[in-house]
Amino acid sequence: MEKEIKIVPGFSWFGKNIGIKDKTPDFGGVLSNVPCNAAAVFTRNTMPGAPIVVGREHVANGKLQAIIVNSKNANVATERKGVEDSRKICQLVAESCGISADLVLPSSTGVIGRYLPMDIIKAGCENLRQEFGSTVKDAENFARSIMTTDTRPKWVSAKVGDATIFGVAKGAGMVEPNMATMLSYFMTDADVPSKKLQEILVRVVNQSYNRISIDTDTSTSDTVVILANGLAGEVDLEEFEKVFLEMSIYLAKEIARDGEGATKLIELTVSGAQTQQQALLTAKSIVNSPLVKTAIYGADPNWGRFVMAIGKVFDYTVEIKDLKIYFGENKEYFINADIIDRDAVPLDEISSILKKEYVFIDVVLGDGFYSEKVWGCDLTEGYVKENAYYTT
Amino acid sequence: MEKEIKIVPGFSWFGKNIGIKDKTPDFGGVLSNVPCNAAAVFTRNTMPGAPIVVGREHVANGKLQAIIVNSKNANVATERKGVEDSRKICQLVAESCGISADLVLPSSTGVIGRYLPMDIIKAGCENLRQEFGSTVKDAENFARSIMTTDTRPKWVSAKVGDATIFGVAKGAGMVEPNMATMLSYFMTDADVPSKKLQEILVRVVNQSYNRISIDTDTSTSDTVVILANGLAGEVDLEEFEKVFLEMSIYLAKEIARDGEGATKLIELTVSGAQTQQQALLTAKSIVNSPLVKTAIYGADPNWGRFVMAIGKVFDYTVEIKDLKIYFGENKEYFINADIIDRDAVPLDEISSILKKEYVFIDVVLGDGFYSEKVWGCDLTEGYVKENAYYTT
Repeated sequence: MEKEIKIVPGFSWFGKNIGIKDKTPDFGGVLSNVPCNAAAVFTRNTMPGAPIVVGREHVANGKLQAIIVNSKNANVATERKGVEDSRKICQLVAESCGISADLVLPSSTGVIGRYLPMDIIKAGCENLRQEFGSTVKDAENFARSIMTTDTRPKWVSAKVGDATIFGVAKGAGMVEPNMATMLSYFMTDADVPSKKLQEILVRVVNQSYNRISIDTDTSTSDTVVILANGLAGEVDLEEFEKVFLEMSIYLAKEIARDGEGATKLIELTVSGAQTQQQALLTAKSIVNSPLVKTAIYGADPNWGRFVMAIGKVFDYTVEIKDLKIYFGENKEYFINADIIDRDAVPLDEISSILKKEYVFIDVVLGDGFYSEKVWGCDLTEGYVKENAYYTT
Repeated sequence: MEKEIKIVPGFSWFGKNIGIKDKTPDFGGVLSNVPCNAAAVFTRNTMPGAPIVVGREHVANGKLQAIIVNSKNANVATERKGVEDSRKICQLVAESCGISADLVLPSSTGVIGRYLPMDIIKAGCENLRQEFGSTVKDAENFARSIMTTDTRPKWVSAKVGDATIFGVAKGAGMVEPNMATMLSYFMTDADVPSKKLQEILVRVVNQSYNRISIDTDTSTSDTVVILANGLAGEVDLEEFEKVFLEMSIYLAKEIARDGEGATKLIELTVSGAQTQQQALLTAKSIVNSPLVKTAIYGADPNWGRFVMAIGKVFDYTVEIKDLKIYFGENKEYFINADIIDRDAVPLDEISSILKKEYVFIDVVLGDGFYSEKVWGCDLTEGYVKENAYYTT
């Protein structure tokens, strides 16, 4: 796995500004020379954006050839007109590129509740075929065009046998509990059947994007798509899935680390749980707790807040004498509430661990067999500032 | 109902500083001349503080005569020693006041994970009987002694027939989803049987304290207690419950309004739901959404965030064309996503409603019969600052 762009044979990209809101890149796309096997997962939000409605239809048969994305406007809560607009964009892309409109997956991200400026988008689609290019710069332009409040573009590449996989993502806010204001696109020249691709994608998303949390809000626009054009032939699917998961975890962590206002990435493992559900509920309860997140921001060794967050998972009981909370990548320091000598608690050492940009915490609930790992970020004044005046 | 202190015959109070952390009031109590019928509800957190363990035991027979509270230290995650300490405090109070230790309900609020400074508390309990007084000032001292990050004391009084009810509360953070870092004590001279008192208390708490939300965290120390010494004789119980509920809603709103860093009180009604559960889940989803809370803080008319929050209640589907969001105490302005003319949305007017200190929002989901009302507060830089360095 490499933290850089590797172009994938048979694919081309573009990213540019068309003036949807300001002068930053706001329109981008991916095009394959040939129709691809494709798989996608979308937000669980029951009020999804118009592009999700259209995207679900278009990927239903497991075939896609292009992706078109705009940022700065999510085309959400726009009802029938929003869906018509999304279909129209697919049609414009298809006409310009000489492909079928139902092979285009549309995405939009940005503010909710406004209609897309279709005149601007129509103008942006003129001669679109010429915009696509297959250089690293073209792929980078695409990755930049999908950003909203992200502070940096996110990409990753890897080889599986003769095939290449290249993935990009954007994140920032509303990242929980099932994906995010999160868009992630993977392109590969591996030959993987659509049905298999969908099975693999669901498993991978569940262990990566569904394990990150920024603020407990769930976007109406989340989308993860993979296009496989097959040009490199078949690959070992087990290895493919392993690499794909590794890439997805990397991008998911990049999203958490770049959460709105975040200064730290938190990696939290909860183990010793009696059930898988207990492990996940407890991990989410901790990583989502505003009091835990603010304490980590301030490097305040206020470990009682972990106890509080563990205790608000009402369906399970943890014996506090069995509870251990470890701090540090190598579990350097730990808290056990059963310790009588409170003066022995290494508060300064824990605080110094919490001061790092990558904070590792391991919570052991007892002697159960189940564990979960999740990623999150701290809660800062920056988050509040960024979100208090978003549309104004 | 009056927003002032009314002393209740037969009760006395004290509040003072004993130096648990600093020079602010940190130790207080309530004493009745006679044993009272009593009822209490406690936090649902599965890791409750030691005083909760002891309090549950002591109120089990429906009788209490005194309440003793310290702030600055929650005596939580302190295991066997913590419980022993809480029992010891009850014993000290009982000895000094000449009552039975199992008639004393203990409460502690403050930082989690540290042992109580028992030497200081023991010294503070010497000649305690003399500290109790029955003036308004004594009751005020008590209300002040239980405060932690509250910016002001909270009290309310009312008459029911010949009887008086007086209630105090403290709140501030960790207020959700079932009560709060919230302590609330009611004293009355009405004669109400313990069993009846408990039934009434549960209903009242459910419609007041359980409907407020500050940050989704749930304290390990929440306690609501009512003591009825019976000196004023029997009262109309229906009227008693009505007044008690009104007082509790008032104090609950005071707690939300005084949430950590809060600048605004939000009153949110969700109606038109298909089930009671849908109404409550949707109300909580909205009032807890960090993106909604920050938008209200910034008076940003970003109504799409309401759509997002409604849509993350995964178990129910809302037709966006049926959804209406009203702003203002008299529903002055509204949003309906089905409006085609987005320029007609009164964004400036909604922003001016959101600028008020008491923000009313009514969400109508459809034509269902169920509704819920909840209260919350905005999310500000102040919340982050207050919680990032709490113990340090």
